[in-house]
Amino acid sequence: MELNKLVDQIKIKKSFLCLGLDSDLSKIPQFLLNESDPIFSFNKALIDALSGLIVAVKINTAFYEVNGVEGWNSLKKTIEYINTKYPELFTIADAKRGDIGNTSDKYAKAFFENLSFNSLTVSPYMGSDSVEPFLKYKNKYTILLGLTSNKGSNDFQTYPSKDDNLFKQVLKKSKLWKGSNNLMYVVGATKSEYLKEIRSIVPDSFLLIPGVGAQGGSLIDTFKNGANQNIGLLINSSRAIIYAGNGNDFLNKSISVAKTYQIEMEKLLKTL
Amino acid sequence: MELNKLVDQIKIKKSFLCLGLDSDLSKIPQFLLNESDPIFSFNKALIDALSGLIVAVKINTAFYEVNGVEGWNSLKKTIEYINTKYPELFTIADAKRGDIGNTSDKYAKAFFENLSFNSLTVSPYMGSDSVEPFLKYKNKYTILLGLTSNKGSNDFQTYPSKDDNLFKQVLKKSKLWKGSNNLMYVVGATKSEYLKEIRSIVPDSFLLIPGVGAQGGSLIDTFKNGANQNIGLLINSSRAIIYAGNGNDFLNKSISVAKTYQIEMEKLLKTL
Repeated sequence: MELNKLVDQIKIKKSFLCLGLDSDLSKIPQFLLNESDPIFSFNKALIDALSGLIVAVKINTAFYEVNGVEGWNSLKKTIEYINTKYPELFTIADAKRGDIGNTSDKYAKAFFENLSFNSLTVSPYMGSDSVEPFLKYKNKYTILLGLTSNKGSNDFQTYPSKDDNLFKQVLKKSKLWKGSNNLMYVVGATKSEYLKEIRSIVPDSFLLIPGVGAQGGSLIDTFKNGANQNIGLLINSSRAIIYAGNGNDFLNKSISVAKTYQIEMEKLLKTL
Repeated sequence: MELNKLVDQIKIKKSFLCLGLDSDLSKIPQFLLNESDPIFSFNKALIDALSGLIVAVKINTAFYEVNGVEGWNSLKKTIEYINTKYPELFTIADAKRGDIGNTSDKYAKAFFENLSFNSLTVSPYMGSDSVEPFLKYKNKYTILLGLTSNKGSNDFQTYPSKDDNLFKQVLKKSKLWKGSNNLMYVVGATKSEYLKEIRSIVPDSFLLIPGVGAQGGSLIDTFKNGANQNIGLLINSSRAIIYAGNGNDFLNKSISVAKTYQIEMEKLLKTL
């Protein structure tokens, strides 16, 4: 997908909401367990119900790998369904991959070619040659872990000091890599105090922001400190939306939560 | 697997060789493409041929994910075959996973419970709470990326300075995590000059050493600088062994390469 199409969608839908499909057999409405592929049925129902309120869908691979071969089949059917019926949705494989070059090549082929995701989350730990195999794909986006939303982000990402730490090095160095125009970054909503500084390093890049909702980040603070002239933000919500209800009316409850986010986003977009 | 069983195997087989199954449809002997699952047939043949020369098997998940649902099925059949026929082999899922806690929980369940791997490689970038879900499994091992074998390891792992850099922080901090007795570390054979210092930080941990062979690392230097009283090393070789030949006699060529490694290892073990 070309990036301006994503920006167009944000303006059309007045939303920069990303739906996170952390779909878990033990948490989805129990009546769906009668379906031949409960996870796919759950995902499909959510995507159909929410497609007007969201601009992106993030599939967390762990929740599919845990179901083995069947799980990979659910993942495949979900991304194929989106690509066929909602090609305007920006798709993210939240897989946090990254390895030596010949191995990253395989991951890139798996997610960008075979499954046709628009983007993939990647860990920067192994450096340039572990990430560049993903960057060579035109109109495919590598979402590099920058400053994550969890407590453990303080172990290494903010090492050695506030002024000159690892996650800033990741932002700075990655800008110099071949194909860096295809980079986006993960920045946790729980770290909105860092966003202004992050914007000074990567003013033009899209940021994928998890951590609003269950993890406690603020949408308003994130927008004020993180939005750029192209909006430049995708706010992910997973559990707060997909598990809003668990009865026959679960879709209405999910729509209600997503709509609340969308209305807040519409207000914020007017302030730009 | 209990760690002393791995040490026993090393002593019995006089080998600390790990077979890396980076099994690629485009590189395996072409006659195997007539099999119903060529990758599994290739893996099975190699494991049967080499089981006396190796103590561990490392499955690189990228090479299976690239084949989608079929690939996960090949992976599943391979690990089940090893667990059934060769339970004495230490198994490694080389997946380089790691995410926030509730997601790492799923990866741990996928690899440790469902697929019954003995160990999994994990990226440290997201810190303690992204790794601890793996560490809580008894007799399962989390092989944390320390200093990797690729050129890009110089981007962040050796930041900010030689004396006080990220990979040493990873070693030092991870020792304090809950369940840290289940940690092992990845250290590239191309970085053998660092091994003495690494051993001073993690004297007792097993190290998984890729980078001998195709990547140019030295087995002798690695052993001299990295072995401990329990040997403490698993030397991985993937391409050099599995693609030693590609005709009908490919197994003999793989055996020959693996045997060369084993003989060198036997000599080194005598020096301990």
